[in-house]
Amino acid sequence: MAYRETEKMRLRKAAARQRIAECTYQCVAEGGFRNAKITRIAQLAGVATGSIYRHFESKEDLFAEIFRIATQREIDKVVESLATPGSAIERLEKALQQFAERALKGPVMAWSLIAEPVDPKVEEERLAYRKAYADLFEQAIREGIKEGCIPDQNARQSSTCLVGAIAESLVGPLSPTQNEQATTTATDNNDPLANTIIRFCIQGLTGTRR
Amino acid sequence: MAYRETEKMRLRKAAARQRIAECTYQCVAEGGFRNAKITRIAQLAGVATGSIYRHFESKEDLFAEIFRIATQREIDKVVESLATPGSAIERLEKALQQFAERALKGPVMAWSLIAEPVDPKVEEERLAYRKAYADLFEQAIREGIKEGCIPDQNARQSSTCLVGAIAESLVGPLSPTQNEQATTTATDNNDPLANTIIRFCIQGLTGTRR
Repeated sequence: MAYRETEKMRLRKAAARQRIAECTYQCVAEGGFRNAKITRIAQLAGVATGSIYRHFESKEDLFAEIFRIATQREIDKVVESLATPGSAIERLEKALQQFAERALKGPVMAWSLIAEPVDPKVEEERLAYRKAYADLFEQAIREGIKEGCIPDQNARQSSTCLVGAIAESLVGPLSPTQNEQATTTATDNNDPLANTIIRFCIQGLTGTRR
Repeated sequence: MAYRETEKMRLRKAAARQRIAECTYQCVAEGGFRNAKITRIAQLAGVATGSIYRHFESKEDLFAEIFRIATQREIDKVVESLATPGSAIERLEKALQQFAERALKGPVMAWSLIAEPVDPKVEEERLAYRKAYADLFEQAIREGIKEGCIPDQNARQSSTCLVGAIAESLVGPLSPTQNEQATTTATDNNDPLANTIIRFCIQGLTGTRR
Protein backbone atom coordinates (compact mmCIF):
# COMPACT_ATOMS: atom_id res chain seq x y z
CA MET A 1 0.00 0.00 0.00
CA ALA A 2 2.77 2.45 0.93
CA TYR A 3 4.32 1.93 -2.47
CA ARG A 4 1.10 2.59 -4.36
CA GLU A 5 0.49 5.79 -2.39
CA THR A 6 3.96 7.03 -3.25
CA GLU A 7 3.42 6.23 -6.90
CA LYS A 8 0.15 8.11 -6.88
CA MET A 9 1.85 11.12 -5.27
CA ARG A 10 4.63 10.96 -7.79
CA LEU A 11 2.16 10.97 -10.66
CA ARG A 12 0.22 13.83 -9.14
CA LYS A 13 3.40 15.81 -8.66
CA ALA A 14 4.49 15.15 -12.23
CA ALA A 15 1.08 16.26 -13.50
CA ALA A 16 1.30 19.51 -11.51
CA ARG A 17 4.81 20.15 -12.82
CA GLN A 18 3.60 19.56 -16.37
CA ARG A 19 0.66 21.93 -15.87
CA ILE A 20 2.95 24.65 -14.51
CA ALA A 21 5.25 24.25 -17.52
CA GLU A 22 2.33 24.44 -19.96
CA CYS A 23 0.89 27.54 -18.29
CA THR A 24 4.30 29.21 -18.32
CA TYR A 25 4.65 28.42 -22.02
CA GLN A 26 1.24 30.01 -22.62
CA CYS A 27 2.20 33.15 -20.65
CA VAL A 28 5.47 33.53 -22.56
CA ALA A 29 3.69 33.04 -25.90
CA GLU A 30 1.28 35.82 -24.91
CA GLY A 31 3.64 38.42 -23.50
CA GLY A 32 7.24 37.27 -23.45
CA PHE A 33 9.30 36.21 -20.45
CA ARG A 34 9.09 39.69 -18.93
CA ASN A 35 5.31 39.42 -18.57
CA ALA A 36 5.24 35.83 -17.35
CA LYS A 37 4.62 36.53 -13.65
CA ILE A 38 4.74 33.67 -11.16
CA THR A 39 1.44 34.74 -9.60
CA ARG A 40 -0.30 34.58 -12.98
CA ILE A 41 1.30 31.23 -13.83
CA ALA A 42 0.17 29.79 -10.49
CA GLN A 43 -3.34 31.10 -11.04
CA LEU A 44 -3.55 29.53 -14.51
CA ALA A 45 -2.12 26.23 -13.25
CA GLY A 46 -4.45 26.19 -10.25
CA VAL A 47 -1.66 25.90 -7.69
CA ALA A 48 -0.47 28.10 -4.84
CA THR A 49 2.26 30.55 -5.87
CA GLY A 50 4.73 29.10 -3.40
CA SER A 51 4.21 25.55 -4.58
CA ILE A 52 5.79 26.42 -7.93
CA TYR A 53 9.10 26.44 -6.10
CA ARG A 54 8.55 22.83 -5.03
CA HIS A 55 8.76 21.92 -8.72
CA PHE A 56 11.33 24.43 -9.93
CA GLU A 57 14.24 25.79 -7.90
CA SER A 58 13.75 29.33 -9.13
CA LYS A 59 11.90 31.38 -11.71
CA GLU A 60 15.08 31.33 -13.82
CA ASP A 61 15.13 27.52 -13.75
CA LEU A 62 11.48 27.40 -14.77
CA PHE A 63 12.10 29.87 -17.59
CA ALA A 64 15.21 28.00 -18.75
CA GLU A 65 13.16 24.80 -18.96
CA ILE A 66 10.41 26.52 -20.96
CA PHE A 67 13.06 27.99 -23.20
CA ARG A 68 14.50 24.52 -23.82
CA ILE A 69 11.11 22.96 -24.51
CA ALA A 70 10.02 25.76 -26.86
CA THR A 71 13.30 25.96 -28.76
CA GLN A 72 13.65 22.20 -29.03
CA ARG A 73 10.25 22.18 -30.73
CA GLU A 74 11.59 24.66 -33.33
CA ILE A 75 14.86 22.78 -33.74
CA ASP A 76 12.92 19.54 -34.30
CA LYS A 77 10.96 21.20 -37.09
CA VAL A 78 14.17 22.36 -38.76
CA VAL A 79 15.73 18.89 -38.39
CA GLU A 80 12.58 17.37 -39.87
CA SER A 81 12.63 19.72 -42.88
CA LEU A 82 16.33 19.11 -43.45
CA ALA A 83 15.73 15.34 -43.38
CA THR A 84 13.09 15.32 -46.15
CA PRO A 85 14.04 14.03 -49.61
CA GLY A 86 15.49 16.49 -52.11
CA SER A 87 18.67 18.41 -52.80
CA ALA A 88 20.37 20.29 -49.96
CA ILE A 89 19.02 23.55 -51.41
CA GLU A 90 15.46 22.25 -51.47
CA ARG A 91 15.81 21.03 -47.91
CA LEU A 92 17.35 24.30 -46.72
CA GLU A 93 14.55 26.19 -48.42
CA LYS A 94 11.96 24.04 -46.69
CA ALA A 95 13.65 24.57 -43.31
CA LEU A 96 13.77 28.35 -43.79
CA GLN A 97 10.14 28.41 -44.88
CA GLN A 98 9.11 26.38 -41.85
CA PHE A 99 11.16 28.54 -39.50
CA ALA A 100 9.89 31.85 -40.91
CA GLU A 101 6.25 30.79 -41.05
CA ARG A 102 6.26 29.53 -37.48
CA ALA A 103 7.92 32.73 -36.27
CA LEU A 104 5.43 34.91 -38.14
CA LYS A 105 2.52 32.90 -36.74
CA GLY A 106 3.80 33.16 -33.16
CA PRO A 107 5.71 36.45 -33.21
CA VAL A 108 5.81 36.97 -29.44
CA MET A 109 7.24 33.50 -28.78
CA ALA A 110 9.71 33.93 -31.66
CA TRP A 111 10.85 37.25 -30.22
CA SER A 112 11.17 35.75 -26.73
CA LEU A 113 13.22 32.84 -28.03
CA ILE A 114 15.48 34.86 -30.31
CA ALA A 115 15.75 38.42 -29.09
CA GLU A 116 14.05 39.23 -25.77
CA PRO A 117 16.53 40.38 -23.14
CA VAL A 118 16.58 37.51 -20.65
CA ASP A 119 18.24 36.31 -17.48
CA PRO A 120 21.82 34.96 -17.95
CA LYS A 121 20.62 31.41 -17.19
CA VAL A 122 18.16 31.63 -20.09
CA GLU A 123 20.71 33.43 -22.25
CA GLU A 124 23.01 30.43 -21.86
CA GLU A 125 20.30 28.16 -23.27
CA ARG A 126 19.78 30.61 -26.10
CA LEU A 127 23.44 30.57 -27.07
CA ALA A 128 23.47 26.79 -27.13
CA TYR A 129 20.41 26.69 -29.37
CA ARG A 130 21.57 29.48 -31.63
CA LYS A 131 24.69 27.42 -32.14
CA ALA A 132 22.50 24.36 -32.80
CA TYR A 133 20.70 26.20 -35.62
CA ALA A 134 23.97 27.38 -37.13
CA ASP A 135 25.35 23.82 -36.92
CA LEU A 136 22.29 22.39 -38.68
CA PHE A 137 22.48 24.94 -41.48
CA GLU A 138 26.25 24.52 -41.73
CA GLN A 139 25.82 20.77 -42.13
CA ALA A 140 23.22 21.23 -44.88
CA ILE A 141 25.47 23.76 -46.67
CA ARG A 142 28.35 21.25 -46.55
CA GLU A 143 26.07 18.59 -48.03
CA GLY A 144 25.05 21.02 -50.77
CA ILE A 145 28.69 21.74 -51.59
CA LYS A 146 29.34 18.00 -51.85
CA GLU A 147 26.22 17.45 -53.96
CA GLY A 148 27.30 20.31 -56.21
CA CYS A 149 24.12 22.37 -55.79
CA ILE A 150 25.92 24.96 -53.62
CA PRO A 151 29.21 26.52 -54.83
CA ASP A 152 32.26 25.93 -52.67
CA GLN A 153 32.38 28.34 -49.73
CA ASN A 154 33.18 28.49 -46.04
CA ALA A 155 30.07 26.73 -44.72
CA ARG A 156 30.50 27.97 -41.15
CA GLN A 157 30.78 31.59 -42.18
CA SER A 158 27.83 31.33 -44.55
CA SER A 159 25.65 29.64 -41.95
CA THR A 160 26.35 32.58 -39.63
CA CYS A 161 25.26 35.06 -42.31
CA LEU A 162 22.13 32.99 -42.78
CA VAL A 163 21.19 32.86 -39.09
CA GLY A 164 21.83 36.62 -38.80
CA ALA A 165 19.67 37.45 -41.81
CA ILE A 166 16.75 35.35 -40.54
CA ALA A 167 16.96 36.51 -36.93
CA GLU A 168 17.26 40.21 -37.71
CA SER A 169 14.53 40.27 -40.32
CA LEU A 170 12.08 38.15 -38.31
CA VAL A 171 12.48 39.57 -34.84
CA GLY A 172 15.34 42.07 -34.68
CA PRO A 173 14.75 45.71 -33.73
CA LEU A 174 14.74 46.60 -37.42
CA SER A 175 12.37 43.84 -38.38
CA PRO A 176 9.34 44.89 -40.39
CA THR A 177 7.38 42.67 -37.97
CA GLN A 178 8.34 45.00 -35.08
CA ASN A 179 7.68 48.10 -37.02
CA GLU A 180 4.56 47.76 -39.08
CA GLN A 181 4.38 51.21 -40.64
CA ALA A 182 7.90 50.99 -41.99
CA THR A 183 7.29 47.85 -44.01
CA THR A 184 6.07 49.27 -47.24
CA THR A 185 5.86 52.47 -49.20
CA ALA A 186 3.56 53.04 -52.15
CA THR A 187 6.21 51.95 -54.65
CA ASP A 188 7.23 48.86 -52.69
CA ASN A 189 7.16 45.33 -53.81
CA ASN A 190 4.55 43.62 -51.63
CA ASP A 191 6.44 40.37 -51.26
CA PRO A 192 5.63 38.53 -48.01
CA LEU A 193 8.54 38.73 -45.58
CA ALA A 194 9.12 34.96 -45.60
CA ASN A 195 9.68 35.06 -49.37
CA THR A 196 12.23 37.85 -49.11
CA ILE A 197 14.14 36.01 -46.40
CA ILE A 198 14.19 32.71 -48.25
CA ARG A 199 15.18 34.31 -51.53
CA PHE A 200 17.91 36.40 -49.92
CA CYS A 201 19.39 33.41 -48.09
CA ILE A 202 19.19 30.88 -50.92
CA GLN A 203 20.56 33.38 -53.44
CA GLY A 204 23.23 34.33 -50.92
CA LEU A 205 24.34 30.71 -50.76
CA THR A 206 24.02 29.81 -54.43
CA GLY A 207 24.32 33.00 -56.47
CA THR A 208 21.47 31.72 -58.60
CA ARG A 209 18.34 33.76 -59.19
CA ARG A 210 15.24 32.31 -57.57
CA MET B 1 40.39 91.50 -19.39
CA ALA B 2 37.46 89.74 -17.77
CA TYR B 3 36.27 88.66 -21.23
CA ARG B 4 39.67 87.23 -22.28
CA GLU B 5 39.97 85.31 -19.06
CA THR B 6 36.55 83.73 -19.60
CA GLU B 7 37.45 82.82 -23.17
CA LYS B 8 40.67 81.18 -21.97
CA MET B 9 38.71 79.20 -19.37
CA ARG B 10 36.18 78.18 -21.97
CA LEU B 11 38.92 76.91 -24.27
CA ARG B 12 40.62 75.06 -21.44
CA LYS B 13 37.34 73.47 -20.46
CA ALA B 14 36.64 72.44 -24.04
CA ALA B 15 40.11 70.92 -24.31
CA ALA B 16 39.61 68.90 -21.12
CA ARG B 17 36.23 67.68 -22.35
CA GLN B 18 37.79 66.68 -25.66
CA ARG B 19 40.61 64.83 -23.86
CA ILE B 20 38.11 62.94 -21.67
CA ALA B 21 36.14 61.91 -24.76
CA GLU B 22 39.29 60.72 -26.54
CA CYS B 23 40.46 58.69 -23.53
CA THR B 24 37.02 57.12 -23.15
CA TYR B 25 37.06 56.18 -26.83
CA GLN B 26 40.46 54.55 -26.31
CA CYS B 27 39.24 52.60 -23.26
CA VAL B 28 36.16 51.34 -25.12
CA ALA B 29 38.28 50.33 -28.12
CA GLU B 30 40.50 48.32 -25.77
CA GLY B 31 37.94 46.57 -23.60
CA GLY B 32 34.39 47.58 -24.43
CA PHE B 33 32.08 49.83 -22.43
CA ARG B 34 32.06 47.41 -19.52
CA ASN B 35 35.78 47.89 -18.93
CA ALA B 36 35.81 51.64 -19.42
CA LYS B 37 36.04 52.68 -15.77
CA ILE B 38 35.73 56.33 -14.83
CA THR B 39 38.85 56.15 -12.63
CA ARG B 40 40.91 54.83 -15.53
CA ILE B 41 39.52 57.42 -17.95
CA ALA B 42 40.34 60.23 -15.50
CA GLN B 43 43.85 58.88 -15.06
CA LEU B 44 44.44 58.73 -18.82
CA ALA B 45 42.99 62.21 -19.33
CA GLY B 46 45.00 63.63 -16.45
CA VAL B 47 41.98 64.98 -14.57
CA ALA B 48 40.46 64.27 -11.16
CA THR B 49 37.78 61.55 -11.26
CA GLY B 50 35.12 63.92 -9.94
CA SER B 51 35.85 66.57 -12.54
CA ILE B 52 34.60 64.26 -15.28
CA TYR B 53 31.11 65.00 -13.99
CA ARG B 54 31.67 68.70 -14.61
CA HIS B 55 31.86 67.86 -18.30
CA PHE B 56 29.33 65.02 -18.51
CA GLU B 57 26.20 64.67 -16.41
CA SER B 58 26.72 60.96 -15.86
CA LYS B 59 28.74 58.01 -17.07
CA GLU B 60 25.80 57.04 -19.29
CA ASP B 61 25.85 60.47 -20.93
CA LEU B 62 29.59 60.20 -21.51
CA PHE B 63 29.16 56.72 -23.01
CA ALA B 64 26.24 57.82 -25.17
CA GLU B 65 28.39 60.63 -26.57
CA ILE B 66 31.28 58.25 -27.31
CA PHE B 67 28.83 55.87 -28.93
CA ARG B 68 27.54 58.68 -31.15
CA ILE B 69 31.04 59.83 -32.12
CA ALA B 70 32.26 56.30 -32.88
CA THR B 71 29.18 55.21 -34.80
CA GLN B 72 28.96 58.46 -36.76
CA ARG B 73 32.52 57.78 -37.93
CA GLU B 74 31.37 54.37 -39.27
CA ILE B 75 28.20 55.79 -40.81
CA ASP B 76 30.26 58.49 -42.57
CA LYS B 77 32.46 55.79 -44.12
CA VAL B 78 29.40 53.94 -45.40
CA VAL B 79 27.89 57.17 -46.78
CA GLU B 80 31.23 57.95 -48.45
CA SER B 81 31.40 54.50 -50.10
CA LEU B 82 27.80 54.69 -51.24
CA ALA B 83 28.48 58.12 -52.81
CA THR B 84 31.40 56.96 -55.01
CA PRO B 85 30.83 56.55 -58.77
CA GLY B 86 29.59 53.19 -60.05
CA SER B 87 26.46 51.10 -60.09
CA ALA B 88 24.42 50.64 -56.92
CA ILE B 89 25.83 47.13 -56.61
CA GLU B 90 29.41 48.34 -56.89
CA ARG B 91 28.75 51.00 -54.30
CA LEU B 92 27.01 48.57 -51.93
CA GLU B 93 29.92 46.19 -52.31
CA LYS B 94 32.37 48.95 -51.48
CA ALA B 95 30.32 49.95 -48.42
CA LEU B 96 30.16 46.35 -47.15
CA GLN B 97 33.89 45.89 -47.73
CA GLN B 98 34.65 49.09 -45.85
CA PHE B 99 32.33 48.16 -43.00
CA ALA B 100 33.65 44.61 -42.65
CA GLU B 101 37.31 45.59 -42.87
CA ARG B 102 36.97 48.29 -40.26
CA ALA B 103 35.11 45.92 -37.93
CA LEU B 104 37.72 43.20 -38.37
CA LYS B 105 40.54 45.69 -37.72
CA GLY B 106 38.87 47.02 -34.55
CA PRO B 107 36.90 44.02 -33.33
CA VAL B 108 36.39 45.22 -29.76
CA MET B 109 35.03 48.58 -30.86
CA ALA B 110 32.85 46.86 -33.47
CA TRP B 111 31.48 44.52 -30.82
CA SER B 112 30.83 47.40 -28.42
CA LEU B 113 29.01 49.40 -31.08
CA ILE B 114 26.94 46.52 -32.43
CA ALA B 115 26.46 43.85 -29.78
CA GLU B 116 27.80 44.65 -26.30
CA PRO B 117 25.02 44.74 -23.69
CA VAL B 118 24.80 48.42 -22.77
CA ASP B 119 22.87 50.87 -20.65
CA PRO B 120 19.41 51.82 -22.03
CA LYS B 121 20.63 55.35 -22.80
CA VAL B 122 23.35 53.93 -25.04
CA GLU B 123 20.97 51.30 -26.43
CA GLU B 124 18.73 54.11 -27.64
CA GLU B 125 21.62 55.55 -29.63
CA ARG B 126 22.34 52.11 -31.01
CA LEU B 127 18.80 51.62 -32.26
CA ALA B 128 18.88 54.99 -34.00
CA TYR B 129 22.15 54.13 -35.73
CA ARG B 130 21.12 50.61 -36.63
CA LYS B 131 18.14 52.18 -38.31
CA ALA B 132 20.48 54.64 -40.04
CA TYR B 133 22.50 51.77 -41.55
CA ALA B 134 19.38 49.97 -42.69
CA ASP B 135 18.07 53.21 -44.24
CA LEU B 136 21.32 53.76 -46.12
CA PHE B 137 21.35 50.22 -47.50
CA GLU B 138 17.64 50.40 -48.30
CA GLN B 139 18.20 53.59 -50.28
CA ALA B 140 21.05 52.01 -52.26
CA ILE B 141 18.93 48.90 -52.95
CA ARG B 142 16.12 51.12 -54.26
CA GLU B 143 18.60 52.89 -56.53
CA GLY B 144 19.83 49.51 -57.77
CA ILE B 145 16.27 48.40 -58.56
CA LYS B 146 15.74 51.64 -60.53
CA GLU B 147 19.06 51.25 -62.34
CA GLY B 148 18.14 47.65 -63.15
CA CYS B 149 21.22 46.08 -61.54
CA ILE B 150 19.14 44.69 -58.63
CA PRO B 151 15.95 42.69 -59.35
CA ASP B 152 12.71 44.12 -58.01
CA GLN B 153 12.25 43.26 -54.33
CA ASN B 154 11.09 44.76 -51.05
CA ALA B 155 14.08 47.01 -50.35
CA ARG B 156 13.28 47.49 -46.67
CA GLN B 157 13.03 43.76 -46.00
CA SER B 158 16.20 43.01 -47.91
CA SER B 159 18.15 45.73 -46.14
CA THR B 160 17.15 44.13 -42.84
CA CYS B 161 18.44 40.73 -44.00
CA LEU B 162 21.64 42.44 -45.04
CA VAL B 163 22.19 44.23 -41.72
CA GLY B 164 21.47 40.97 -39.84
CA ALA B 165 23.89 38.94 -41.94
CA ILE B 166 26.71 41.45 -41.45
CA ALA B 167 26.12 42.02 -37.74
CA GLU B 168 25.83 38.33 -36.80
CA SER B 169 28.81 37.20 -38.83
CA LEU B 170 31.08 40.06 -37.78
CA VAL B 171 30.31 40.35 -34.09
CA GLY B 172 27.38 38.18 -33.08
CA PRO B 173 27.74 35.35 -30.59
CA LEU B 174 28.11 32.92 -33.49
CA SER B 175 30.66 35.02 -35.29
CA PRO B 176 33.83 33.19 -36.30
CA THR B 177 35.64 36.25 -34.91
CA GLN B 178 34.28 35.46 -31.42
CA ASN B 179 35.06 31.85 -31.71
CA GLU B 180 38.41 31.30 -33.32
CA GLN B 181 38.65 27.51 -33.14
CA ALA B 182 35.33 27.04 -34.85
CA THR B 183 36.23 28.99 -37.98
CA THR B 184 37.75 26.29 -40.11
CA THR B 185 38.06 22.56 -40.41
CA ALA B 186 40.67 20.81 -42.53
CA THR B 187 38.35 20.61 -45.52
CA ASP B 188 37.19 24.20 -45.26
CA ASN B 189 37.37 26.86 -47.84
CA ASN B 190 39.80 29.44 -46.42
CA ASP B 191 37.95 32.46 -47.69
CA PRO B 192 38.46 35.55 -45.55
CA LEU B 193 35.31 36.38 -43.59
CA ALA B 194 34.82 39.74 -45.35
CA ASN B 195 34.64 37.95 -48.73
CA THR B 196 32.02 35.50 -47.50
CA ILE B 197 29.88 38.31 -46.10
CA ILE B 198 30.09 40.45 -49.22
CA ARG B 199 29.40 37.51 -51.53
CA PHE B 200 26.47 36.29 -49.44
CA CYS B 201 24.88 39.75 -49.29
CA ILE B 202 25.43 40.75 -52.92
CA GLN B 203 24.27 37.36 -54.18
CA GLY B 204 21.33 37.58 -51.78
CA LEU B 205 20.29 40.87 -53.37
CA THR B 206 20.99 40.05 -57.01
CA GLY B 207 20.84 36.28 -57.41
CA THR B 208 23.93 36.54 -59.59
CA ARG B 209 27.05 34.53 -58.88
CA ARG B 210 30.00 36.66 -57.79
